[in-house]
Amino acid sequence: MRNIKLTIEYDGTNYNGWQSQKNGAGIEDVIKEAIKSLTGEDVDLIASGRTDAGVHALGQVANFITNSSIPADKFSFALNTKLPEDIVIVKSEEVDKDFHARFSAKSKTYRYLIYNDIHPSALLRKRAYHVFYELNLENVREAASYFIGTHDFAAFMAKGSNVKTTVRTITDITINKKEKLIEIEVTGNGFLYNMVRIIAGTLVDVGIGKINVADIKDIIESRRREKAGKTLPPWGLYLVKVDYD
Amino acid sequence: MRNIKLTIEYDGTNYNGWQSQKNGAGIEDVIKEAIKSLTGEDVDLIASGRTDAGVHALGQVANFITNSSIPADKFSFALNTKLPEDIVIVKSEEVDKDFHARFSAKSKTYRYLIYNDIHPSALLRKRAYHVFYELNLENVREAASYFIGTHDFAAFMAKGSNVKTTVRTITDITINKKEKLIEIEVTGNGFLYNMVRIIAGTLVDVGIGKINVADIKDIIESRRREKAGKTLPPWGLYLVKVDYD
Repeated sequence: MRNIKLTIEYDGTNYNGWQSQKNGAGIEDVIKEAIKSLTGEDVDLIASGRTDAGVHALGQVANFITNSSIPADKFSFALNTKLPEDIVIVKSEEVDKDFHARFSAKSKTYRYLIYNDIHPSALLRKRAYHVFYELNLENVREAASYFIGTHDFAAFMAKGSNVKTTVRTITDITINKKEKLIEIEVTGNGFLYNMVRIIAGTLVDVGIGKINVADIKDIIESRRREKAGKTLPPWGLYLVKVDYD
Repeated sequence: MRNIKLTIEYDGTNYNGWQSQKNGAGIEDVIKEAIKSLTGEDVDLIASGRTDAGVHALGQVANFITNSSIPADKFSFALNTKLPEDIVIVKSEEVDKDFHARFSAKSKTYRYLIYNDIHPSALLRKRAYHVFYELNLENVREAASYFIGTHDFAAFMAKGSNVKTTVRTITDITINKKEKLIEIEVTGNGFLYNMVRIIAGTLVDVGIGKINVADIKDIIESRRREKAGKTLPPWGLYLVKVDYD
């Protein structure tokens, strides 16, 4: 018995998110089916966490236990022949038997991608969120710095979520601009439901002058969802990587 | 009567190329339909040239004559409300009455995009051509330099094409690498059918060592299609821009 870790890239557009669905439209379902077709095994596929419908991944991580004799680094090639083009295993490797894609994760990095131009992009539709007004990046960067650290992020969680604590730690937020694309990259030890999409929505509001930089601290401290910006759509969000020890 | 120039971005994946089709699946059909819905006019939409099924554009150019009173720079916004998300008018402007998108064009720039990694990319499928073997870019750049200038490019034209002359001038070829993406950008005064896709296929063969750099000059001079590399698929090709005086 070996424990195999997969690193996975996917285009979330055509799926109902990571989680297994009754109709098989979850990314998890498709990968489990590919593993079954390859090894004959009905494995338990453990991901670092779920991603919502439409959300993309450059480096989702999942693991499973197998009795198959396929060399660990060959699983990626073998599975890719069974998978649709919008799901690709970019790496497969053997890991310790106690590695758990979710519980062993130390931090995650998400990217929210914004296309900032007066017209949307035909080629980046469903890949980036279109913002018409030019963002003031100096203000966006200053606002972003307030999120770094350990805070109660209750104002940045979808209403109705049920969690023990809304305290999380963000270790880094960077804002990069490459021509018309703006990347908001957030690294943290854990994220509340919709947290990155609400932070991105709040930063866009700062960038267009709808929220003042000076108010960000109060918005965080308020713990009130309605004080923060809107939840941006899923298609701008990418799970970039999951870090382990 | 005004002559309106449109600059157009499109994702060619879901269309049967630029040219009008009986079933309306040409990009030209869709834009003409949007113009008709906006102005009531059945215009003659003149493009800089056709693009094949699956080929993308960042800056296709087309023009049409209209009696509409819509301000020239507002056509883009108005048309985008009528167009599907995979076709975007990025600019609209009034031009001289003798401007002709095809005959007035001085040069065109195409890009062929290669994703160079052991695994394909889920997010760039239908956006870049996947090459498994690592390309030797030094050799690719040296080979590319032989194409610059005025040559008989008969070896780089799809068989069965019917043209008066196969002599064309390439003014520039640049090879850029950004992480796993390699861009082959070709500028010229005109292109034969499939010319950029065959040049790209030949350069890939050089990059993987299947064709020697030293043989490129002979391949060009041979004028024989079978001496050159294969025609790469349409989805890696982008019409980047069309230059006018």
